[in-house]
Order: sequence, then structure tokens, then C-alpha cells
Amino acid sequence: MKRYQVVGIGNAMVDILAQASDEFLAENGIGKGIMQLIDMDRAVALYDRIGPAREVSGGSAANTIAGVAHLGGRTAYVGKVREDQLGHIFAHDLRAQGAVYETRMAPPESPEETGRCIVLVTPDGERSMNTYLGCTEFLHPDDIDPAMMAEAEWIYLEGYRFDGPDSHEAFARAIRAAKGAAGKVALTLSDPFCVERHRAAFRNMIVADVDLLFANRAELVSMYESNDFAAARAAAAAEVSILVATDSENGVHVLAGEEALHVPAVPTRIVDATGAGDMFAGAFLWGLAEGHGLEICARMGNIAASEVISHIGARPEADLRALFRQHGVI
Amino acid sequence: MKRYQVVGIGNAMVDILAQASDEFLAENGIGKGIMQLIDMDRAVALYDRIGPAREVSGGSAANTIAGVAHLGGRTAYVGKVREDQLGHIFAHDLRAQGAVYETRMAPPESPEETGRCIVLVTPDGERSMNTYLGCTEFLHPDDIDPAMMAEAEWIYLEGYRFDGPDSHEAFARAIRAAKGAAGKVALTLSDPFCVERHRAAFRNMIVADVDLLFANRAELVSMYESNDFAAARAAAAAEVSILVATDSENGVHVLAGEEALHVPAVPTRIVDATGAGDMFAGAFLWGLAEGHGLEICARMGNIAASEVISHIGARPEADLRALFRQHGVI
Repeated sequence: MKRYQVVGIGNAMVDILAQASDEFLAENGIGKGIMQLIDMDRAVALYDRIGPAREVSGGSAANTIAGVAHLGGRTAYVGKVREDQLGHIFAHDLRAQGAVYETRMAPPESPEETGRCIVLVTPDGERSMNTYLGCTEFLHPDDIDPAMMAEAEWIYLEGYRFDGPDSHEAFARAIRAAKGAAGKVALTLSDPFCVERHRAAFRNMIVADVDLLFANRAELVSMYESNDFAAARAAAAAEVSILVATDSENGVHVLAGEEALHVPAVPTRIVDATGAGDMFAGAFLWGLAEGHGLEICARMGNIAASEVISHIGARPEADLRALFRQHGVI
Repeated sequence: MKRYQVVGIGNAMVDILAQASDEFLAENGIGKGIMQLIDMDRAVALYDRIGPAREVSGGSAANTIAGVAHLGGRTAYVGKVREDQLGHIFAHDLRAQGAVYETRMAPPESPEETGRCIVLVTPDGERSMNTYLGCTEFLHPDDIDPAMMAEAEWIYLEGYRFDGPDSHEAFARAIRAAKGAAGKVALTLSDPFCVERHRAAFRNMIVADVDLLFANRAELVSMYESNDFAAARAAAAAEVSILVATDSENGVHVLAGEEALHVPAVPTRIVDATGAGDMFAGAFLWGLAEGHGLEICARMGNIAASEVISHIGARPEADLRALFRQHGVI
């Protein structure tokens, strides 16, 4: 048995969550429902304008790994924070959830602070993300421990990470080590604009190395440059062993060889959509690592996503295993 | 018209909120429902043991002032943070709520960081507080601007602040300036153990200077060393113009000269009791400053308290004025 079921690599972030109106987004040039990269000056200026906020650990893959850990999975995370108060908060929350997190912190004198994401939640529950990457942008290939990757049944790569300068090499190093030890590779496309920025690199990786691809509708149609979701799914499914294509309240499509499933979403009142995709992936991967079939994994993902969008913050608050039992999936 | 309706002085804190079981409290020597002062070593050790947390600005009087600001009141706060990430979070959240906050930050190289309170919320919604005062302990009398105090209709003093070394002198300076300009003085006793530590000093201040005293049952019986809540109320009412004695779900007693009111609590499901007393005081003081009668002020306080205990975190999330309208108090 390998030490880890899932090892995630991504941008380590603390989320700054505040409520905002659609007018506020428009006045401040914030694209609704997407992730925009911002620099420190913009982060400071925007923070000055938003209302009272709360701080919770975030980061897309980190949320996913927190979900795996919450479910009792054997899991670890790689992503860089600085040795500052937000960095300690990030590290604490991940470890307290039961994940292994050993990435060396950037020293306190580093010019770039721990990354943060100003998440503005509109009354409809949609989240618009403004990300100052900070020191997490500088995750170095040396931060990837090949021995850890070799001990992973799955490595889970966050598409956002491609925005960092050394990320391609870091991912390549992780993939080599994992595959060299018969591990599998999962990738999430993260965001349609992220796909725009890195389409060719994503494509190469998908074709060469990815076993399981997570993407939502907007990401997938961007990736395959088709406005037809079904056609984009077919194109992706031809390139990976398992395609998991989420479509918000319309549920999820899973394509794997001859198998083609559509699994409906779990209806919920949306309070804050932050983390829905992350938590879907965490539950799906945990299910897979536990040996469940694809339909059960998709149902677990939908249940976990419905929990996380029913409250503010991107990590589970209710007991997901209890919810799985209530829904009869375990 | 004075510039401020209420100026609060207290311990500036960021709350670290986590769920915990009663067993966890017992194993870690944490007194349930009370505030314990802890040093940095204990803060670090305890933080290592708690589960994933979220960070929100707190501090008793700061919560009260945030409540006054939320209601649209003219208000300011005095309390010390360090120039670090948590300090900036504290300052942002208070200003973003509409309060004036100008206290000079301790410089980043100060040995004591921004104060924090590890708040453990048990399944019954009760909160047990573990406070590392940090730099807020060192609020200096020079941090009290007499001109600001003279511009206050009410100054609101947090009993917890008596745990700081120079606090008596700082409070005396604030009281002199406020009273010298016909301002009034409100005091909250904060906590029964805080009363134990400072009974004589509190008593002197109450007799000499306090116009409005906020206390809950445990604090009042400790203050007047009587197990009879009614007797303690009578003793306190003989010493202040207005006594506001809260008693959790049993409502609140207001005694003012010949007037004696009992106003029932607003029934709510308790999620997190943190901030109930603070928000009661904020709404009560705002009502008073707006010229409402004591019964309406008490009803406002109860409505505001019921809102803040219905969710995690000590500051209002719903629109309190809208709730006041729903309840017919404005």
C-alpha cells in the first residue's frame, strides 16, 4: 500500500471572503464568477474598498486535499507560503484537517507575502476571485520531493499552478516520479481564462500524462475550442482514461472508455459557490482511491460540492461521511 | 452635535474560531464559557491542537463599535494592534464597517504580535475563549486622545482592558476628557473572572464615574459578591444611572431611577454565542444615542444579540436595521 492516496500540488492561498454587490464588481472592473490575477498594489487597493471580511485557508488543490483528509484519506499537499501569520494559518488548517504538509516556507524576509485571494460573494452565491499569488508563484522544482510523489497513488495537479514561472518543470518532475512508481496523474483545468493562458501546455500534458481530467463546462469548451459541450467532452475523453466534466446544477458527466455516465447534482441553496469544484474533486478522488465505481465517486463529489456551497468558505463544515451515509453511497 | 455617538476602548483582537468537543475542553484544561488569559507559548501549543479554524476580527468593545457602525452610528474605537497581517485585518474590518480607527499600530519589530483569541465553540453553541493579549496589553495612556473623547456622547469601556498594565490610567484619562465635555461613561464588566481580578478598581470607577453599567448575571453577582441576582441588581442600580443586566435566554433587566424593566430575549437557535453581549451593548448604545427609550433600546439589543448568535463570528451578518423594522422597534 502506498503511503498516500492523493498528493496535491497547487497555489497555497488564504481566502479573504467578503460580500459584494454586482454594482461593486462592475465599478471595480471585477469579472463575475472568474479568477483574475492581481498584483500587490491592486490587492491593497481592492482590500481597502471591500467590506468587513473573514479569512479562511483556501487554494484550489489545497481545498481538494483538505476534503480528502476530512474524509479520512491518506493525503499530502505541496504549495508555498511565506513564514508569516497568514502562512501559519494556511499550514495549521491543512495539518489540523489531517493532511501532510511539509513544503518549506519562504523566509519571513522574502518580499512576496503569503498569497491571498479576495473572494467577493454576490447575493446569488457566485464568487469572483481576485488572486495575489505572492510567494506561492515561486514554488520551485526543488520543492517537489520525488520520494513523496512516488508514494502517491494519485497526484493531483492544479491548473492555476501553470501561472507560476517554474511550474511546468515542477509538474514534470512530479509526474516523472509518480509515473515511475506506477502512480496516476489527475489534472484540473481550474478556470477558462487559465486555459486560455496555457492551452498548449495543458494539451501536451493531457495527451502525454493525464489519466483523469477534471473540467467544468466553460473550461472544457475553452480547452477544445468548441462551443459544443458534448463535442468537447468527446474530444477530451479520447485523450484521457477518465474525463469528469462538471456542469454546475446540471450535474456531472463521466466518460471512461466505453462507460458514459450522467450523474445529477444534489439540489442546494447556494450561499457561496467557492470551493464547489475543489470539493467535488476531493470526494471523487477519495472514492476512487477507496475502490468505488465511477458513478458512486461522482455522487460523492456532488454531495460534497452541495455541502460546501451551502455555507461561506471553501472547506467542509458538516461531516461528509455522514452525508454519504445519508445518501446511501457508503 | 458631537462628532461621535460612541467611542469604545478595549482589547483589539483577531478571533480564531474552531469547533471543539466538551472532551477537548476538559483534556486541555479549558474552562467552558469563560475567557482565560494565555501566554504566547500556550497560544501556540493550543493552536497546534485545535482543528481547522477561521479568522475574524473580534475584541469585545471592537465588536460593540462594529455593531454601532453597522447600524449607521457615528463611532470610533481605540485599541492596539501590531503592524502585522492580523493587525491589518483588524483595522480593515473595523474601518470597512464604518468606524473611525486611528490608534497607532505597534511597529512590526515589537516582540508582542497582534492579540488573538482562540474561541472554541462546542456543539451547544457555547464559546470558550483563550486570549493571548499580545501588544494590545500595552495600550498606553498616550494612545488616548482627549480631543476624541471630548467629541463622544458616550465612551464605552471594556472591563477586559483592566488586565493591561497602564489601563487604569488610560481609562482615567478617557473619563476625564469625556466628562469634561459633558460626555457619559458606559462600562461593561466583561467576564466574572475579570471582575474577580479587578473588583475594587471596577467598584471605584462605577461609583465615581459610570453612568451606564452593562453586566450579565455571573458578572453582576461576582461584582456585588451576592448569589442573589435581584439583590445584586439593586445594589448596582443604586450606584449608576442606568443598569443593564443581561441574563442570556431569560432576557434583560434595565433599572434606571424609578424605572425597572424586564425585556424578554428573542428566541434563536444558538450556533455560536460569541459576541452576544457585545452586540447587545452596541445596539443598546446606538438606540440610546438615537434618542430611543430604554425598553426599545433593550429590545434592539436583544434582536442584535439573537442575530449574532445565529451564526459563527461575533459581528453582524444580516442587516440589523431591517431586523429592527421587522420587529417594529424602528
